[in-house]
Amino acid sequence: MCSPAIIEKVKKRITRRNLLQGIGVSGAASASGCLAQSVSSSQPPDSSSTNLPESVSFTRVVDLSHTLHPNFPAWFVAGQQVTTRGKRTFVPPEIVEVKSVFEWNPDKVNLKQITYWEHVGTHMDAPSHFSEGSTVDEIPAEDLVLPLAVVDIKAHAHSDPLARLTMKDIQKWESKHGLIPERAMLALNSGWAKYVDTPKYKSLDENGKHRQPGFHPEVAQFLMEERNVVALGVDTFSFDNQLSKNSEVHYLWMGDNRWGIENLNNLDDVPAVGATVVVGQPSIQGGSGGPSRVMALV
Amino acid sequence: MCSPAIIEKVKKRITRRNLLQGIGVSGAASASGCLAQSVSSSQPPDSSSTNLPESVSFTRVVDLSHTLHPNFPAWFVAGQQVTTRGKRTFVPPEIVEVKSVFEWNPDKVNLKQITYWEHVGTHMDAPSHFSEGSTVDEIPAEDLVLPLAVVDIKAHAHSDPLARLTMKDIQKWESKHGLIPERAMLALNSGWAKYVDTPKYKSLDENGKHRQPGFHPEVAQFLMEERNVVALGVDTFSFDNQLSKNSEVHYLWMGDNRWGIENLNNLDDVPAVGATVVVGQPSIQGGSGGPSRVMALV
Repeated sequence: MCSPAIIEKVKKRITRRNLLQGIGVSGAASASGCLAQSVSSSQPPDSSSTNLPESVSFTRVVDLSHTLHPNFPAWFVAGQQVTTRGKRTFVPPEIVEVKSVFEWNPDKVNLKQITYWEHVGTHMDAPSHFSEGSTVDEIPAEDLVLPLAVVDIKAHAHSDPLARLTMKDIQKWESKHGLIPERAMLALNSGWAKYVDTPKYKSLDENGKHRQPGFHPEVAQFLMEERNVVALGVDTFSFDNQLSKNSEVHYLWMGDNRWGIENLNNLDDVPAVGATVVVGQPSIQGGSGGPSRVMALV
Repeated sequence: MCSPAIIEKVKKRITRRNLLQGIGVSGAASASGCLAQSVSSSQPPDSSSTNLPESVSFTRVVDLSHTLHPNFPAWFVAGQQVTTRGKRTFVPPEIVEVKSVFEWNPDKVNLKQITYWEHVGTHMDAPSHFSEGSTVDEIPAEDLVLPLAVVDIKAHAHSDPLARLTMKDIQKWESKHGLIPERAMLALNSGWAKYVDTPKYKSLDENGKHRQPGFHPEVAQFLMEERNVVALGVDTFSFDNQLSKNSEVHYLWMGDNRWGIENLNNLDDVPAVGATVVVGQPSIQGGSGGPSRVMALV
């Protein structure tokens, strides 16, 4: 599903700096024997392999979703002018609209009309959000149930709205928990979820630009090439932050026909490894993403 | 969550005919020892009890959802005039609209604006659709993961678009598979899912009214009162059909603060009992239902 042309395009976009050698991961990986398990570079997710161990067990369910409402913080700002291919678009006053078609009374029903821009709330970024890859309805259900690994950077993200998940964090995590499982969701717990209803969630800078923790592109590349991670997860509203120029993580990840979930919640309530994530992504034809109910089976 | 007032209202609406005695279920239930396990009448789902056995295991995932698109068969018809509380509403040409805000090109992103009337596609009917009960965001995630029981009436529904799941079907199922699990989803497999893109899905009668298999109200009442079933499921677009007057099943079920899923798919691919259903219902504040990704863990 990920054409060589797309991969080539993405490779050109991403500045490659022999990342792994440069930060000594190869050595660490060799020492732990993980290179033998690594997959070849830029290999798209292999849908013939199984996402799950032979049998998965769980005893409880954790909701990893926020509730979506018209004031949920969004990437865009009401009234903002956005231009693509020469076409101007103004962002509407509400990214999410909830209108009553019927209202319940003892003899009637309650029914609403919902309108949203896809990328709001706890939501999927499908590959097609940043590439010519798969839309939400093209991701099979079995790919929506994955081992979950959670990396916690709360300690340094607390006071740094531009904190990023780095290879050092990954190394530290793997030295404690073992290799990130094959075909997992790797979720970044920056501690940002609890700020969702406060200005800190956007942490606007002096130019009105958002600041929030995200992934270092080196990490995204490593997770894709060396751990065959299927999905990224983050508890802020973007995998990228201002330190990644031009949505580098998005283009890299989705350009390789992979997907992710933004605005996750409750990551403190799941273990670093051992849970299974279920992404309840409504299958809307041609969707580039959209609000999702994400749950962890623990 | 279900006030006595609501329960009373529903009881008045539903014609009670000592259903269970009338069709001899009490005897059957006593014989199988199930009365000892029955719950008291009209008891709302008890959220303090566990939905799941101590540990749930699975090895595969089955998608129970259809893909939603603008031509998905809907209850309403474009241009139809509907009136509630004296307010006229005209059904728009499309119940589901997908508009591109941005379209992907090598430097841009793909982002759509989605609009839908909540009750379309594979979707939840929350209690608030037909009562003053819970909205979708008020249903906790742990209640969205339930044991799944599937009752197959394909043999007689095939040639009868007004077939209903009856107490006889339930008795036959329980004599073969044992009692319906406590706090389960009970899904009706009428075989209708495969007709979703054909006129048979609506099977319009000479007056232009829909015909599709559904639940007999007696069954809904039994499942609620004697089996504490949490959610109904059906592979047609309504729990009710023309033989149930005035949306009897909807008012009964949702009036007791219970919910369900309509337009299920692939019920042939899951066992009659033993699977676990996960309802990926986006948590939209105040929603009376909406498109959902429903999966079975088998």
